[in-house]
Amino acid sequence: MDSLAISEAPVDDIFRILIATDTHLGYAEDDPERCNDSFIAFEEVLRLARAHEVDFLLLGGDLFHETRPSTQCMHKCLELLRQYCLGDKPISVEFLSDQKLNFQHASQTIVNYYDPNLSISIPVFSIHGNHDDPTGQKQLSCLDILSVTGFVNYFGKWTDLTEVKISPILLRKGNSKIALYGLSHIKDERLSRLFRDGKVQWFRPDEDTEDWFNIFVCHQNREERGLAKYLAEESLPAFLDLVVWGHEHECRLEDERRLELKWNPTREFYIMQPGSSVATSLCIGESQMKHVALLNVCKRKFKVDTLRLKTVRPFICETVSLSECNLPELGDNTSAKVQDYLEERINFWIDEAKKQLTGHDKQPTLPLIRVRVEYKDEEQTFNTIRFGQRFHSRVANPTDLVLLKREKKASSRKTKDNDRDEREELDELLENESGEDWESKMNYYMLRYFDEVSRKTLQVLSLTGMNDAVTSFVEKNDKEKFKMILDHQMNKVCKYLCDKKIDVDRIDEEIENYRIQRMHAGDQQEREELQRLKSTRERTQKIEEPTTIEDEDTDIENGDGDITIIQPVQSTQRGRGRGSRARGTTTTTRATTSRARGRARGTRAGAVSANTTRANTSAASSRQSSRTSQKTLTQTRLIYDEDDEDDF
Amino acid sequence: MDSLAISEAPVDDIFRILIATDTHLGYAEDDPERCNDSFIAFEEVLRLARAHEVDFLLLGGDLFHETRPSTQCMHKCLELLRQYCLGDKPISVEFLSDQKLNFQHASQTIVNYYDPNLSISIPVFSIHGNHDDPTGQKQLSCLDILSVTGFVNYFGKWTDLTEVKISPILLRKGNSKIALYGLSHIKDERLSRLFRDGKVQWFRPDEDTEDWFNIFVCHQNREERGLAKYLAEESLPAFLDLVVWGHEHECRLEDERRLELKWNPTREFYIMQPGSSVATSLCIGESQMKHVALLNVCKRKFKVDTLRLKTVRPFICETVSLSECNLPELGDNTSAKVQDYLEERINFWIDEAKKQLTGHDKQPTLPLIRVRVEYKDEEQTFNTIRFGQRFHSRVANPTDLVLLKREKKASSRKTKDNDRDEREELDELLENESGEDWESKMNYYMLRYFDEVSRKTLQVLSLTGMNDAVTSFVEKNDKEKFKMILDHQMNKVCKYLCDKKIDVDRIDEEIENYRIQRMHAGDQQEREELQRLKSTRERTQKIEEPTTIEDEDTDIENGDGDITIIQPVQSTQRGRGRGSRARGTTTTTRATTSRARGRARGTRAGAVSANTTRANTSAASSRQSSRTSQKTLTQTRLIYDEDDEDDF
Repeated sequence: MDSLAISEAPVDDIFRILIATDTHLGYAEDDPERCNDSFIAFEEVLRLARAHEVDFLLLGGDLFHETRPSTQCMHKCLELLRQYCLGDKPISVEFLSDQKLNFQHASQTIVNYYDPNLSISIPVFSIHGNHDDPTGQKQLSCLDILSVTGFVNYFGKWTDLTEVKISPILLRKGNSKIALYGLSHIKDERLSRLFRDGKVQWFRPDEDTEDWFNIFVCHQNREERGLAKYLAEESLPAFLDLVVWGHEHECRLEDERRLELKWNPTREFYIMQPGSSVATSLCIGESQMKHVALLNVCKRKFKVDTLRLKTVRPFICETVSLSECNLPELGDNTSAKVQDYLEERINFWIDEAKKQLTGHDKQPTLPLIRVRVEYKDEEQTFNTIRFGQRFHSRVANPTDLVLLKREKKASSRKTKDNDRDEREELDELLENESGEDWESKMNYYMLRYFDEVSRKTLQVLSLTGMNDAVTSFVEKNDKEKFKMILDHQMNKVCKYLCDKKIDVDRIDEEIENYRIQRMHAGDQQEREELQRLKSTRERTQKIEEPTTIEDEDTDIENGDGDITIIQPVQSTQRGRGRGSRARGTTTTTRATTSRARGRARGTRAGAVSANTTRANTSAASSRQSSRTSQKTLTQTRLIYDEDDEDDF
Repeated sequence: MDSLAISEAPVDDIFRILIATDTHLGYAEDDPERCNDSFIAFEEVLRLARAHEVDFLLLGGDLFHETRPSTQCMHKCLELLRQYCLGDKPISVEFLSDQKLNFQHASQTIVNYYDPNLSISIPVFSIHGNHDDPTGQKQLSCLDILSVTGFVNYFGKWTDLTEVKISPILLRKGNSKIALYGLSHIKDERLSRLFRDGKVQWFRPDEDTEDWFNIFVCHQNREERGLAKYLAEESLPAFLDLVVWGHEHECRLEDERRLELKWNPTREFYIMQPGSSVATSLCIGESQMKHVALLNVCKRKFKVDTLRLKTVRPFICETVSLSECNLPELGDNTSAKVQDYLEERINFWIDEAKKQLTGHDKQPTLPLIRVRVEYKDEEQTFNTIRFGQRFHSRVANPTDLVLLKREKKASSRKTKDNDRDEREELDELLENESGEDWESKMNYYMLRYFDEVSRKTLQVLSLTGMNDAVTSFVEKNDKEKFKMILDHQMNKVCKYLCDKKIDVDRIDEEIENYRIQRMHAGDQQEREELQRLKSTRERTQKIEEPTTIEDEDTDIENGDGDITIIQPVQSTQRGRGRGSRARGTTTTTRATTSRARGRARGTRAGAVSANTTRANTSAASSRQSSRTSQKTLTQTRLIYDEDDEDDF
């Protein structure tokens, strides 16, 4: 079916879905110039949803920038949702799956537009991301606040971290049917292990299994970054038709419009990466044009329109290598000459940035400019903050306009890791150029510190737990995590000591025993991890080259993009290894096997309307697990794996 | 009209209003035993509202315990509101006043049950208290969150702290009409000054002015506590019929049921003090039975039913004076003997507390017990925390079950303030027995510290500003206030210096000049305040005697109370000094004159339905102000008086 065909299909059969992600509401909230950027972009998303009369809005996580948004931020978000998503427009999408199952974690197990007390004009479906993930004793996310108001349908929330069961939301519009799978953010390492151990189960509708268009939305690392922490596309089951990837801030719709959406040939699905609607780090990936996607689905066919966001602040990110600039030799006033040279260049980019102005009355006009300046000699450096003041009220970020960086010697790249200047690495860590990579690097340094530098041994706390707490604190201002981790690990030690009925005098000794024992079991992973990290870093340092930004097509008036038709493969071409039309199909994927496996026996649920996606889990139980200690799992809410320090 | 008359009146003419206050949601959130107490009681309030089919629920502030409630707390509150207050029950109360005026501070200037996108079964009207007051740059309260969801109608929020205009919400049910005046919490000192300076304006409906039943809800100190910071009943205008007093945690409905509601003879209105629904300090006032009030209003008559809350945790508060206990003389094991004696007494009270059990399945059963033990000799003391462990899992508060206190010598009361043991005073401050008095005492000690003890002088910050920040931090965990105060006062100094174009070398000198100048203007008040505080404290120390708790009538089965009929005075008996049936009446009250004054000219709004309460403010402008520097006021949102350090 091509675009013509989809346009000619009955409107009543076409799902229209607006897809956005990583709106990071509240980002730069304390910056008087930028404090509204995230809200302006989010409002544009909502306006687009209304203008295009979509059936629903799908969000890929990180709606909020902080785990615990400020009162102002939560207020503004609710205000926008109430303004745009409440109204008397009829919703023509039937919700077929069991709402109690899809929203089992929520206090209101009902999709908002079925609530007789609310008039919803635009249903919003969202998973959580790593910024707005659940915290606290009751593991509540700020999305739970939106969920309990009824303004957002928060789905795909894990409730058991030892086993992930992904049941789709089943939607019908006319003759089209969508199975919407969601998986809210889980730490990448944990998710990788879950996949490795066959602990991720996918449930499929048991009636007309092959007639559904299967969308999966997730919020994980997509790139194999420095630490091999990411969700491998090969882990995902082949029955999916379209994967919506949150978390990655770079918009890969423009590219993919030309290339068509990224096609994963081994898994036979398409991947869409809308990217964030606000730049949260001053790096090249974020300086791409920001877009959202308008997805049209008719039966098993889909097409994607890319809609450029017109209220995003202009942003130019450049690198200047002073050695390539034909500057005069070192001497008097070197620093001043460098500054004058840079001023000229920056003036040029400020002009360039004007090309990104769209004429939208809500677009902030003061541009973000980031220049990474590579210098060879200290004499070329200067006070970047004072220099930035030259552009006061001409750029949005005068204080971090310029990033000075010593030019890397070609030779140093090839030396051993240990020979690298530690300070240089730390600089890299702190300069916040690497976007989401911060966490990986921090973990690496923490590991190195305790393992090699200080030779200190943590007695009670585990390193991964501490990493987690530090990351939560720095990234999300989440102070509770420290307390939680301390409590959790203290409790475990106390329990160990109590169970053993240790004499008071032998406590120190036994704590050490406990540590060794734990190290042999769980913490062995840490050593392995460290080893892997080191080799990965050495490898990535070799291949890590600054990518250059392509010239943007600033076709402002016609920015809504062309229409691309993508035809998913037919079910006959797919479904490898699966019986067709199986009832109560459970698909469990392993990262290594890359093949859908396991079929449920014995479920006989008839109608699609309730519980159809429940499947017998016996398939899972027959698996041999590679974990040291497997427990019988009872499915309660929010189980933590006691043997697993990583999440605490 | 007596109770019979009100019962015989047409139901369609009777307003039924449930009144509660100080629910302090989130109180003791970190205490595993008590964390749900506030929510359980609030849920009971909502259940009562539903069971009694009230027209609306009126809350008197401090719905939340913290300025910035935790995610869990906000979630639970919204969950309860959605569960109880949304539904398809028709609302038979007409909202007559201008919603844009009543909700001018809100983003949704509409009463929730008129919103076509929400089905409201129980409208909730609330002011804010001192715990959930607005903070941050945009001065948003957590009630603004509830307001923007549409679950609560947040009213009476001040938007200009230099002049308070109180416009009523006008409601009609059948032939009855209520004018509902609300004033959210303002610091008592400021409010006193506003009254003193004639800066509080009351607006009255201009049609049938005398036919309205006038309710005023506030959240201020009612008692003249140590520091004379309170709202004097005499400040309030005589046209009011009923004042609902929030903030005071002691329930004064039971008493007042017997005495009839407190009648203020000079002002000719009744005062109702429902008290908190959860005990937030372990003092005698909080150990009274907790109630809410069911108010019935028919035309100008009303009656109040008191409804006992049956889910409140049992609480007994006692004082033991060891010198009156016939204990053996001092000697071996004195401390042990005291403890054994107390254990026996506490066991008795634990049994006594069982009488407070109501049989309600949600009532927590573990009692709160607080024993204030007055000792004469150090030998009688002991480790109260270890002692408390004897009652582990038998009381809800083993760690602060006992409060040790040295018996006061009769003579010390009469000595001068300076002779009192400073430590004793500090102990008093920290023991948290005095409930809401903490703030006054803290302020007093801060003033004394800077004035007398350290002889240190604050150069840039003002003491009142610091007091405010410390109080906000301690009571409400509000860290932003420090930053705001610092910014505000720094800005003022910078502006002063910039305006004067000071030379860099003379900055210190000029800052000192500024301080002196400020002291002569604003801070002079501080000196006066200090002087007043001292005399007040000396006075109150003399009259401050522990009050004894009366035996509670634990009539559990019949706890909903008798019906009392209260007949407000007729309008002919009232309205002193006012023309009757005036159009667009503005009433401005001064604390000192105790007489309504000022009538607006020139408004000709006809119908009651819109803007009828707008009044010409010329009456105000003719007043001579006692303040040093009066500015022309433009009414924008959230004006701060720049000359007034107190609120910053």
